[in-house]
Amino acid sequence: MKLVEGGVCAAKGFRANGLHCGIRKNKIKKDLALIVSDVPAAAAAVYTTNLVKGAPLLVTKKHLANGVAQAVICNSGNANTCNANGVEIAEHMSELVAEVAGVKVDDVVVASTGVIGQPLDITPIRKAMPQLVAGLSYDHLGARAAAEAIITTDTVAKEVAVEFEIGGKVCHLGGIAKGSGMIHPNMATMLVFITTDVKISAAMLQKALSTDVQKTFNMVSIDGDTSTNDTVAVLANGLAGNDEIVAEGADFEIFMKALNTVTVQLCRLLAGDGEGATKLLECKVTGAACSKCAGTVAKSVICSSLLKSAMFGADANWGRVLCAIGYSGAAVDIDRIDVAFRSAKGTVEVCKNGAGVEFSEEKAKEILLENEIEILVSLGDGAGEATAWGCDLTYDYVKINGDYRT
Amino acid sequence: MKLVEGGVCAAKGFRANGLHCGIRKNKIKKDLALIVSDVPAAAAAVYTTNLVKGAPLLVTKKHLANGVAQAVICNSGNANTCNANGVEIAEHMSELVAEVAGVKVDDVVVASTGVIGQPLDITPIRKAMPQLVAGLSYDHLGARAAAEAIITTDTVAKEVAVEFEIGGKVCHLGGIAKGSGMIHPNMATMLVFITTDVKISAAMLQKALSTDVQKTFNMVSIDGDTSTNDTVAVLANGLAGNDEIVAEGADFEIFMKALNTVTVQLCRLLAGDGEGATKLLECKVTGAACSKCAGTVAKSVICSSLLKSAMFGADANWGRVLCAIGYSGAAVDIDRIDVAFRSAKGTVEVCKNGAGVEFSEEKAKEILLENEIEILVSLGDGAGEATAWGCDLTYDYVKINGDYRT
Repeated sequence: MKLVEGGVCAAKGFRANGLHCGIRKNKIKKDLALIVSDVPAAAAAVYTTNLVKGAPLLVTKKHLANGVAQAVICNSGNANTCNANGVEIAEHMSELVAEVAGVKVDDVVVASTGVIGQPLDITPIRKAMPQLVAGLSYDHLGARAAAEAIITTDTVAKEVAVEFEIGGKVCHLGGIAKGSGMIHPNMATMLVFITTDVKISAAMLQKALSTDVQKTFNMVSIDGDTSTNDTVAVLANGLAGNDEIVAEGADFEIFMKALNTVTVQLCRLLAGDGEGATKLLECKVTGAACSKCAGTVAKSVICSSLLKSAMFGADANWGRVLCAIGYSGAAVDIDRIDVAFRSAKGTVEVCKNGAGVEFSEEKAKEILLENEIEILVSLGDGAGEATAWGCDLTYDYVKINGDYRT
Repeated sequence: MKLVEGGVCAAKGFRANGLHCGIRKNKIKKDLALIVSDVPAAAAAVYTTNLVKGAPLLVTKKHLANGVAQAVICNSGNANTCNANGVEIAEHMSELVAEVAGVKVDDVVVASTGVIGQPLDITPIRKAMPQLVAGLSYDHLGARAAAEAIITTDTVAKEVAVEFEIGGKVCHLGGIAKGSGMIHPNMATMLVFITTDVKISAAMLQKALSTDVQKTFNMVSIDGDTSTNDTVAVLANGLAGNDEIVAEGADFEIFMKALNTVTVQLCRLLAGDGEGATKLLECKVTGAACSKCAGTVAKSVICSSLLKSAMFGADANWGRVLCAIGYSGAAVDIDRIDVAFRSAKGTVEVCKNGAGVEFSEEKAKEILLENEIEILVSLGDGAGEATAWGCDLTYDYVKINGDYRT
């Protein structure tokens, strides 16, 4: 399993492109991305659980009903959500891709991210489509352009890819992601598009994705607000030439590992680049009665506004970790909890068996001033483990989300 | 039902006092409060649901097992939580009150608020007890001193009292509360102490309190972090001379109304004075399928970090209201939701039937620049109603909680 360049173009037979078409006012920011596979691909997706769902999700869900897709179109700058004509516009986007890129309209994944409740004008998308399709490329520049076109207030484009072997065939799997915030911010929509040349049935692809997101994207929180447009979609075009994966087994395990390697890295990138964030927080829970309990505890800790603020201030305020564990809803024995903070500068134990231990505030400060902090929680109840990813709460989070619309 | 002065001393036969004993470093901040009834009172309480519970809660719970109390002792500056000797210290506090004020040790309610995991020294409390008891007074100055001694980073002391009649007898009910933050901040502990001279059985008092908190204190959120020390306690000493309330009926209804009048006002004071807050947010949900659904929706809206940030920026970003309704977990029909913002400057409708309506951004800004904002949500699903109270998310919230310990 080795990391490689190329993002969504690392896998054979995928081309990508991104450009500025005019949805966003800032002309140096790309706002339209397209990914196309040379051949129809097995496809799987997971969507937001928010009852308010962006129109693109409804259209994508319909298109993916048969487990096949060949292209992904995504705009930033407008979520196309809570608009009377949203579904119509999302269908129109698919039709434009179908016409110009020569794929079936039902094989297009559509996604949008941006402000809610403002009609999305199809005109700039229609005008840009020929150029967008003409510029599709198989190399890392195309992948990069697509990665750049889906981000909003993200400070960096996010792409990861790996190379691995299944049955002697060289395979690839790569993804791009956008995190929290927009230039005209509204929802911290998370979008992830993953491509692979592995040959795998749509059913097994969906199984792999649905299993993986529980331990990866569902364990990320920037601000506790579940967007209306969250979408993670995977396209597997089979061009690696491996024997099709149609059941569990060694090949499926390798595929799951490749998928997880990419998704964990994307989670870290998303959390570390949360709106206003200065630090990546990684809460690692061990010794839980079950892995679900471990996940509940880990997520509660990284969602605590008080702990997030303390991390911004590099304050080893471990009482907030215990508090968040206590209200998480998981059944834990408070008197067996150990807590430590760890970073590149070392580890400091702050709580043993539910009570404070003496520690050097100076050493703790040095550790917490780093920009990647691990919060290590040991519950002493069993063998369940989980990791959750978050970020600190900063002045800039408030600024980004309070100062924009006026 | 008329508002009167006097806080916890408005009811007959209650004396109170507060002073600085030395738990807090800042000598101008009081840190020890005492409330004493002339006679043993029926008592009821509700506590945090956090699995990590402050030692004082365990002791109070034991003392209130028989439904009788005569005094409340409360310190600020230290939560006496996650300390090996916490229960012992809380018992010791009760014993000191019993000795010096002449009440039974089992009739003392004990509470603490402040930093977690630092042993609480009994010495300053022991030394101050004679002076604290000697200074107990029946007038509003005593009540005020107690109200001041339980607050931490609250910017104002919080007290409310009402006068009403039951069976021709003049009755009183008053309360004090502390909200979020500490001078050495850790948990946004909420403490509320209510006194009344109404004669009511402990069982009916507990019933009244448990019913009321569902619609009042449980509908307040400053930052989503449930403290380890939250406590609401009511003492009813019966000195008003009414026929004892031992069952539901007209008298109980009047008592419930008096209680609710005081608790709603305390909720508004708590939310409006949340850490760093510049605005009180009041989300009023109507037309829900049930009142539980209404409560779920209202609380989800006032807990959204994105909406709280938008309110700080006076931004009519209603998509965030819909988003928070959508992920609340309540079953609602998105296409029937109406949303409006209201303040002393007027009302602006921003969403009808789940989609945006045109509105004046200028008028919306004027409305949202006020410091008390109502978010009106109409669901169109039934007759369920609920109100939740919160505050905006500001730079100062981050500052208060990130900058302190070092």
